Amino acid sequence: MPLLVTGSIGIDTIRTPHGCSENCIGGSAIYFTMAASFFSPVRFIGVVGSDCPFNIPHLFSGRDVDLRGLEVRRTSKTFRWAGTYKETMDDRVTDSMELNVLAENPPVVPEAFADSTFVFLANTAPRLQIELLSQIKSPVFVAADTMDCWIAEHLADLRELMMKIDCLIINADEAKLLARQLNPVRAAEEILEMGPSVVIVKKGESGSLTCLKDGSKFVLPAYPTTEVVDPTGAGDSFAGGFMGYLAQTQNTDFGTLKTAVAYGTVVASFTIADFSLDRLKKITRADIDDRLERLREFTSF
Amino acid sequence: MPLLVTGSIGIDTIRTPHGCSENCIGGSAIYFTMAASFFSPVRFIGVVGSDCPFNIPHLFSGRDVDLRGLEVRRTSKTFRWAGTYKETMDDRVTDSMELNVLAENPPVVPEAFADSTFVFLANTAPRLQIELLSQIKSPVFVAADTMDCWIAEHLADLRELMMKIDCLIINADEAKLLARQLNPVRAAEEILEMGPSVVIVKKGESGSLTCLKDGSKFVLPAYPTTEVVDPTGAGDSFAGGFMGYLAQTQNTDFGTLKTAVAYGTVVASFTIADFSLDRLKKITRADIDDRLERLREFTSF
Repeated sequence: MPLLVTGSIGIDTIRTPHGCSENCIGGSAIYFTMAASFFSPVRFIGVVGSDCPFNIPHLFSGRDVDLRGLEVRRTSKTFRWAGTYKETMDDRVTDSMELNVLAENPPVVPEAFADSTFVFLANTAPRLQIELLSQIKSPVFVAADTMDCWIAEHLADLRELMMKIDCLIINADEAKLLARQLNPVRAAEEILEMGPSVVIVKKGESGSLTCLKDGSKFVLPAYPTTEVVDPTGAGDSFAGGFMGYLAQTQNTDFGTLKTAVAYGTVVASFTIADFSLDRLKKITRADIDDRLERLREFTSF
Repeated sequence: MPLLVTGSIGIDTIRTPHGCSENCIGGSAIYFTMAASFFSPVRFIGVVGSDCPFNIPHLFSGRDVDLRGLEVRRTSKTFRWAGTYKETMDDRVTDSMELNVLAENPPVVPEAFADSTFVFLANTAPRLQIELLSQIKSPVFVAADTMDCWIAEHLADLRELMMKIDCLIINADEAKLLARQLNPVRAAEEILEMGPSVVIVKKGESGSLTCLKDGSKFVLPAYPTTEVVDPTGAGDSFAGGFMGYLAQTQNTDFGTLKTAVAYGTVVASFTIADFSLDRLKKITRADIDDRLERLREFTSF
């Protein structure tokens, strides 16, 4: 039962207190796929323009990534994003953004991908997420991300999407905005009322809170690391580790969801240790498993 | 081996989005003692003025609290503090503060308390903390709290104190200030170099990070609660639960320290559920133990 991701491919320029990485590869689908591919085959859907400088097949070589959903649109330009992280690394400003191909028609789900069962809809307009999801015949577990602008300006679409998904993965500030609740636990409970059976509230350096409709809860700190070079992609690689593990185990019971959140947490801790995909490209599944055991030790009492 | 606390007794006026509590009992020694008394006998040292409206012996009746260190200074006035919490409850402003008796000579440690072995020095001028500690003959495990003004203005005294204590319990922002390190793990490691063998970095709603000189680490989220009415005293009751459990077990190995941090976390989650001591007065050790088991379930994977 294959794992599908739809999301962005970006040309990023990132400034942090540790340096600058110009025109490096980024985008939600890229980070997600790199992370998920440690666990499971991945079906990739995303669009670039003719200016795309990256060799994406080469990037994923040696990994089980099906790129039949990668579209190169000859008359378009690739999404670009430039951002600067403040000294504390917990906040960033967008210096510039060119949506380019992301503002055009979305990609089509290839016929060969229509039987995907595990699906991650990375952050984009909820109307597009609904359209993409409608092309999947019998999804088993669908997770989506969203952000403040959709909550503020496309709430009806987002509410419609939430009735169709199993899991919302959302930042703490956005959860509070969506639920109109400042308490994160109550915010998660409100969001569960909107449709999904699982809500994961991401709190960056403070870890995550996972709430299920049956009242089950799981709280996990971030991996305690001194290596924080570039937080870009932490959320999407968290989602990749999470969904990758679910697809690997073909299970979504509470115990599996908890381990999946822990894997997401661990993969994100590698992502932020260097710019772009630089660290994720170097590690192995064994490195991830070692760190998962260390996280278990760090949190058990 | 008895547990000793030195700290403040306050007349608090607290405004939160949930209401206002005027002239209620507060102060670090009060919160600490109420929390610690669930676990261990407590020896209490603190000073009030003649205006103190509280019956402190009655407050602690039924608990094993030795009040021979409670001094009523007839010519003085009691410490007063008024504060307002913002809507998010994670920040507060001090509306007014009258140090009163806290600006005078500190209390003397009664001779009968000089053989105390577990000692908590609540936040005050580090010079006073050193003087109070010097009156204890053979301390076994000494923890102290501090705050930004001492780091900024009395750093030499604080550095001297840190050479004499076993454990510093400190807020995340203050840890960063003290260590001149923005990464919390690195900040804790720098603080360990200053003397203590244990550092606990408190992160409020985000839990805590405990680091030992031997490299051991423990990260624990806050208890996921929707009941947040008044965060005042959370830090001091955390310290009370932590030190109370250590004194109960007469042990400070890593496993015990971790359970003690979990107990502190749980007691603090009760403290914040109502104004002042209102919730702590109502609960039992069984309530605390139940919630400890729930916290273990919420965090294990």
